[in-house]
Amino acid sequence: MSLLLSEEDVREVLGADAVIEAVEEGFRAYGEGRVNMPPKSYLLLDDGDFRAMYGEIKGFLGHDVCGLKWVNVHPNNPSIGLPTVMAKILLNDPVTGVELADMDGSFITDMRTGAAGAVAVKYLAREDASNIAFMGAGRQATTQLECIRRVRNILRVRVYDLDESRAEEFAHHASELGVADSMACGLEEALEDADILVSLTPSRKPVVSADLIPDGLHINAFGADAQGKQELDPAILRRARIYIDDWEQASHSGEINVPLGEDYISKSDISGSLGGLVTGSVEGRVANDDVTLFDSTGLIVQDLVTAYTAYRLCKMRGLGVGKQFLSRVPGGMLEDVYKRF
Amino acid sequence: MSLLLSEEDVREVLGADAVIEAVEEGFRAYGEGRVNMPPKSYLLLDDGDFRAMYGEIKGFLGHDVCGLKWVNVHPNNPSIGLPTVMAKILLNDPVTGVELADMDGSFITDMRTGAAGAVAVKYLAREDASNIAFMGAGRQATTQLECIRRVRNILRVRVYDLDESRAEEFAHHASELGVADSMACGLEEALEDADILVSLTPSRKPVVSADLIPDGLHINAFGADAQGKQELDPAILRRARIYIDDWEQASHSGEINVPLGEDYISKSDISGSLGGLVTGSVEGRVANDDVTLFDSTGLIVQDLVTAYTAYRLCKMRGLGVGKQFLSRVPGGMLEDVYKRF
Repeated sequence: MSLLLSEEDVREVLGADAVIEAVEEGFRAYGEGRVNMPPKSYLLLDDGDFRAMYGEIKGFLGHDVCGLKWVNVHPNNPSIGLPTVMAKILLNDPVTGVELADMDGSFITDMRTGAAGAVAVKYLAREDASNIAFMGAGRQATTQLECIRRVRNILRVRVYDLDESRAEEFAHHASELGVADSMACGLEEALEDADILVSLTPSRKPVVSADLIPDGLHINAFGADAQGKQELDPAILRRARIYIDDWEQASHSGEINVPLGEDYISKSDISGSLGGLVTGSVEGRVANDDVTLFDSTGLIVQDLVTAYTAYRLCKMRGLGVGKQFLSRVPGGMLEDVYKRF
Repeated sequence: MSLLLSEEDVREVLGADAVIEAVEEGFRAYGEGRVNMPPKSYLLLDDGDFRAMYGEIKGFLGHDVCGLKWVNVHPNNPSIGLPTVMAKILLNDPVTGVELADMDGSFITDMRTGAAGAVAVKYLAREDASNIAFMGAGRQATTQLECIRRVRNILRVRVYDLDESRAEEFAHHASELGVADSMACGLEEALEDADILVSLTPSRKPVVSADLIPDGLHINAFGADAQGKQELDPAILRRARIYIDDWEQASHSGEINVPLGEDYISKSDISGSLGGLVTGSVEGRVANDDVTLFDSTGLIVQDLVTAYTAYRLCKMRGLGVGKQFLSRVPGGMLEDVYKRF
């Protein structure tokens, strides 16, 4: 039976450590060429968009898996009490096409994005990085903090958001998580002595100017995820060692897309991919005062490894609801496929 | 609640007449520019492929709907008792992104393809067309026959398939449906005095030569659905009035893709789209001895209208299983969305 997994099922089995491990393994597979992944494609609507992301990973937890994520971005949703982003993930057997699972993908999307932030910090931030600045205090900030704390000893959180009450709330949440020195403040103050900046706004023009960037900073640039979006003064990109998740996606919709389009930077200014950092084929931070930047657009391989991890754990624990995938196929034929996963 | 609909649910409510009507309306919407539809994209695998198809239709049954189909093609599946093609359809509200239904899409795929064949025959075949030849006797042949019978008085069926027993079986099925003169035979014999040819093979080189084509024939060229595929002698395309479903898809993966790539025909040799025929903006058959050809690659709008029709009928009849789409959203917020559909 194909397994129908709700958000509760997935939440029940997926902790931050498990997701970070899965996502790091996903980037390793990407770096080793074991990922087959056309760039995500967009359905543009009047009030938002949908993105179809699909791909295949070979040899993850001993298996080949493929699948799709169908995820919307509707910026006006919060005004009517709905989330901006809602996602669905389908997992399939690449050898037969049979559906293995039909999963809520919203929690997976949050977690796999936070986990990518943690993997980037693990490979790029200074070992002693402890002060973290957030620009944007939405839902993604929570999982970034939750995951980054697993790879660095975070002692101080500063958070800037246009919506001050949201910033206050996030600072409060951070102190509840055990970060004693946690505070909402202005952008300039947030960046003072910061070791890590996590940038999470939907901005279409640069918010952070280059003179605010302290030496040695690592930047997780996660906000830009569509053509025309950018959050950072392009001068920051000229100064930083830039790492991307994937050239096709990042050049089309990541933080680098606008400066590339304006020929302010070129492909040769990119130091490499996070997959290359994980496999060791790409050089990371060289000096303590280097500024490093990870431009994340989000890859389907992150979703696949996280979803497949959740699927395996749910199956082991008997969670989820079995669902007849195809009534035209005798059950036994499909069971042979399911047994392999 | 989002509605989980099995193949049984969909079969229960969808008859050929309802699907033909929905699909004709889908082509009308396409012809009137009410369809937003990026070309389908492919995930190529070692043993087959997946196709992600997604789009939006405005003003269908008074509603705007969007959604996605995730469908595989695995040619070796029959050898292990599995179908070559299995599909899943997700229906969403374009205004909020909320999922309306999560549906088995395999039966819908069969039916909407057959229905497109019927719509093409309705607009292109001679009024008195009664003799139909099938090249390829697989699952699609059944729905093509079932649907085409609704728009023309079919008195004779001839069927050619490399697998003779499959051809016999289909001929038998046709006579069970009430076509008294039904027979498996060779290709040449099948085409003799044929009024309609339905071409459904996975061929990569022409099977039908131009000298076999009788005057006045209408051809439903449905087999070619990927780059490099073709079933017909390109000379037939030079002789025929050619209609396509969609330029982007047909030029990439339809019957015309190879001859276009070889500059044997050009875009100006295409008479128009089926959408244009339905809205009346494109001229169809002019003379009784015209050869007409509909090159079908399959459009997501066909799936959307068929799936939404099934969704509405299932909802009315209380079929399907309600499923919490997102546990993070208070039920009431979603109910406001569901009420609109």
